[in-house]
This record gives sequence, structure tokens and C-alpha cells, in this order.
Amino acid sequence: MQVDNTPKRTLINGIDAEYLSVDDRGLHYGDGLFETIKLMDGKLCYWQEHYRRLQTSAQTLRIACPPQSVFEQDIRNLLQSSPDTGVIKIILTRGSGERGYAVSKTSQPTRIVQLSAMPQYDEQFYQQGIRAGFCQHRLSANPALAGIKHLNRLDNVLARNTLDKGCQEGIMLDQQGRVVEGCMSNLFFIKQGVLHTPALRDAGVDGVIRQQVLALAAEAGWSCRISDVTPQDVLTADEIFFSNSLIGLWPVRQLDDITLASIAHCQQLAAQLARHEKDHATSL
Amino acid sequence: MQVDNTPKRTLINGIDAEYLSVDDRGLHYGDGLFETIKLMDGKLCYWQEHYRRLQTSAQTLRIACPPQSVFEQDIRNLLQSSPDTGVIKIILTRGSGERGYAVSKTSQPTRIVQLSAMPQYDEQFYQQGIRAGFCQHRLSANPALAGIKHLNRLDNVLARNTLDKGCQEGIMLDQQGRVVEGCMSNLFFIKQGVLHTPALRDAGVDGVIRQQVLALAAEAGWSCRISDVTPQDVLTADEIFFSNSLIGLWPVRQLDDITLASIAHCQQLAAQLARHEKDHATSL
Repeated sequence: MQVDNTPKRTLINGIDAEYLSVDDRGLHYGDGLFETIKLMDGKLCYWQEHYRRLQTSAQTLRIACPPQSVFEQDIRNLLQSSPDTGVIKIILTRGSGERGYAVSKTSQPTRIVQLSAMPQYDEQFYQQGIRAGFCQHRLSANPALAGIKHLNRLDNVLARNTLDKGCQEGIMLDQQGRVVEGCMSNLFFIKQGVLHTPALRDAGVDGVIRQQVLALAAEAGWSCRISDVTPQDVLTADEIFFSNSLIGLWPVRQLDDITLASIAHCQQLAAQLARHEKDHATSL
Repeated sequence: MQVDNTPKRTLINGIDAEYLSVDDRGLHYGDGLFETIKLMDGKLCYWQEHYRRLQTSAQTLRIACPPQSVFEQDIRNLLQSSPDTGVIKIILTRGSGERGYAVSKTSQPTRIVQLSAMPQYDEQFYQQGIRAGFCQHRLSANPALAGIKHLNRLDNVLARNTLDKGCQEGIMLDQQGRVVEGCMSNLFFIKQGVLHTPALRDAGVDGVIRQQVLALAAEAGWSCRISDVTPQDVLTADEIFFSNSLIGLWPVRQLDDITLASIAHCQQLAAQLARHEKDHATSL
């Protein structure tokens, strides 16, 4: 992955800033949420879906979520002086507070909106597929937090950084040994013509692109199945691919010692997704 | 709890600062550790033990831990201009980095050392005991993270803030329904003369005071047992108490509908702990 040198720009509660209060609960407890959104030719891909997830997750964590228009104003401000393609990262924390887990009545959420350069992924990853492996570090189990894109991401960090260096993505298991997702993506596989993705019972992030892939596949008349998945299910798949908001879809060419012959389903879905993404991009 | 108005003072990497880089991985992923240390009459209580835990945990998370002397210099600097009693909070993160879970080779850990006022807990909590309840929100399960005082503390936040308002502390269960700890403390109970505390198999923080309580009780000839604990075990205990570095020991007078008659063991241990703490406080 190459990153260009366009400087990042960040707004904290609407104001240009590179520094955050050291008392923010986002730092002390990971007490917050985030979204990573692709900005393409001045348009935000799946903005409605990202905002809706942020709002729903904030409700679950009982963090007050600012209105959509407030984030849109921030993003418009960032776009005035910056390239029109890149990554918008939103972080919403419960704000600053006194020491201790109890939330003070006066604390106001912190809204961070950051524009940075789009990572330049190798074109071969899309055309020929990536190398993937199984991560040793497993995801923490908690049905009450499963699906939510919260800031407690130590599992993903530890899994990513103990993964074989030659791998572009790793497969993470939950505490039961079930397959959940990639370190930074959701996972799909094809077996006997059926599209499978793991149920997110105890862990995992319910990705915006995950939802789109399921909807597009169903629209195309494919059979789709969300269920418990074992490593053996993945190892005997006909095709495997990963999804996230920035990469789109990455087919897998090599999983541990296994070479996968086909990436055809992934490429067909990727083409559909590219069109759909354009139709669901918001001009602010 | 009352908090006095002595202003906080914070050093980030040794320099007075109230703001942290918005790119710090502590914020983005909870990628770091913390320690909360009691400062009493210019002396740091159990400083060796706190530093040792920080160092061991940093090794587990593969974060480079600065030498003890570096933290000691920070604390000496803070003490020059401040009251000699309060709370020292240390946060150690993996530092700033590019977007993404992968750790860049150039990233340097961030060292935050903060001095704030000692919370003034109600003297009745010690003399007559507190009210406690069971938390609905359960701890995430992950043996690879159990015991470590890391920054992924969303569980503690959610548990604390859904606890009955009249309770000073809540009891947290793991995903199996076993008792683990308090929201901000470790838990002990006495049953038929034996001191019990939960094993921290899948979750929980291995508190510095937890270790001291076990050692002091063993020294006094008490039988001690670390094992799996059910809510029923706690509900049928003769005595229950909580421990942490700031509160010391809090006996429980009321747990849900149950009134506990005795706080004698807790008070005996608390007196021993107060003496031991003084003997194990470090002058910097």
C-alpha cells in the first residue's frame, strides 16, 4: 500500500485542530465510535448508510449523535481546500470528563472529522487476488458489542501485527473458533454457487459494504447464507473475498497453503458494486 | 464522591500539555495501557508493582515501555509545583501512526503522566459499607487480554452507567455468567472463614491491590481461594468487599436486596493494608 503525501486535515467539533483534549474519553476508555468513508470525485460513497450506522450505534452506547447536517457541514468545510478524492474518517466520542467510568451529566460528545489521502492499493490485488492467512489472535466475545464499529480495537491491532508479513489480510476467529471477519474487512466465500458470510453473533463489525454485497448478490438472484462458519468451511471454499469501504472487494488467490483457482464471482460483484456505489454517492 | 478543585497537570512525553495528537492510536483503537496510582504525602503507593505491571502488559501488547526512571522524572516534575497528595494516572499508547491497524516501524510510544486531585470518598463507605448491585452489561471474553489494564474499557463504561444510581459499585459477570470483578475494582468475599476472589480467566483486571490483599491474607494465616465464582456464591457470602488503588477496601453493606451483617474481615485487612501501603510507598 502506498500513501500519497497530501496533508491530512482534521476538524474537531467543527474547528481545524491537530490536537484533542487529553481528557477525552475516546482516549481513556475507547468510549466512542468511528466510520471510514470513501470520497470519490467530491462525492461521499454510501454516506446515508454510514451515518445511519453511526446514529444507531451511538444509540446503543447512549452517546448523543449530532445531526447528519452537522457532519455534512464539517465535510463541506474540509472539501473547500482539499482534493476531492480521499478518505473521510469520523470519530464520535462521549467527550471529555472527570476521571472514572461514570459519565458526567455535563459532558458533550466530541466530533472528529478527518480528510486524508486515499490509499493506493496495488492493482494486482484486484486483478489476481491477495494472499491471506488465519490470525492467531482471536476477537473478544460480547454479543452486546457485536456489529458495532466502536473504538475498542485492540484485537484488530494485535491480530494485524502478528499476521505473516506476506499477507494483505488476515482472517479472525471468535472465542469459539468460528470465522468472523478480516482484520479490516468482512469476509465472503462461494461454495457450490452459494454466497456465504459469517453471522456476527459475538464479535465483528457489520460493514456498510457487507450489507451492499448481500443486497446486490440477492438482486442478481444468487443464494446467500449468513451463518456460523468454521475455518474448514473457508478452507474448502471455491472462492473467497474481503470487503470494506475503501478497498471495495479483494479476491483471495492464496490462503495459507491453498491456491484458489477462481475469482470470477468476486469480479462480477465488484463490477456491480462499482456501479451501485456511484449511484449511491452523495454530493454535499 | 467529591472532587476538589485543584487543577490537573499533565505531561505528554515529558512536556506540559493539555492536548494530544488526534492521530494517536490510543484514541483510534484504544491501543495502549494505563495505571492509576495513589500519591500520599509525596510518596507513590506500590509504585514498583504498578510499574512492573505496566512493563509486563506492554510486553504482551508489544508496546515499547520507557524505563522506570523516565516515568519517575515525569512524576518528580509534576510534584514540584503541586500538592503532594492526589492521583497519578499513567497512560502509555503505541503512539501516532498512519491510518490502519498495521503499526508503522517509525511510531514511538506516547507517555502521558497526569496528576489530579484525590477523590474524597464518603467515610461511611469505609465504616458502614457501600451499596452494590449486579451489572447487566457483561465483560467481553478474551483470555489473551484478561488481567491487562488496557484502554479498551467500553464494557466498564457501559456497566457503570447502567447501574442503579444508588449503588457505589457494580459486580460484573463474564460471558459465561461467572463473577469477575467490580466496574472499577476487584472483588473479594468471605465464606466460612475462607477468602475468595474470582479467577480472571476470560476478563478482568489483575489489580495491584488484589495482589496485596491476597498476600496479606495469606500472611495472616487465612485460607485464600482463587477460582470460578457464581453470582450465587457471592449472594450467599458472609462478607463482600471491593479493592482498588484509590479506594483501598470498601466493604459491602447491601447487595441488591441482601443486607450483609459483617464487615469485620474487611476492616481487619484494611488496617493491615494501610500499614503495608505506607511501607511500600516510594519517595521519588
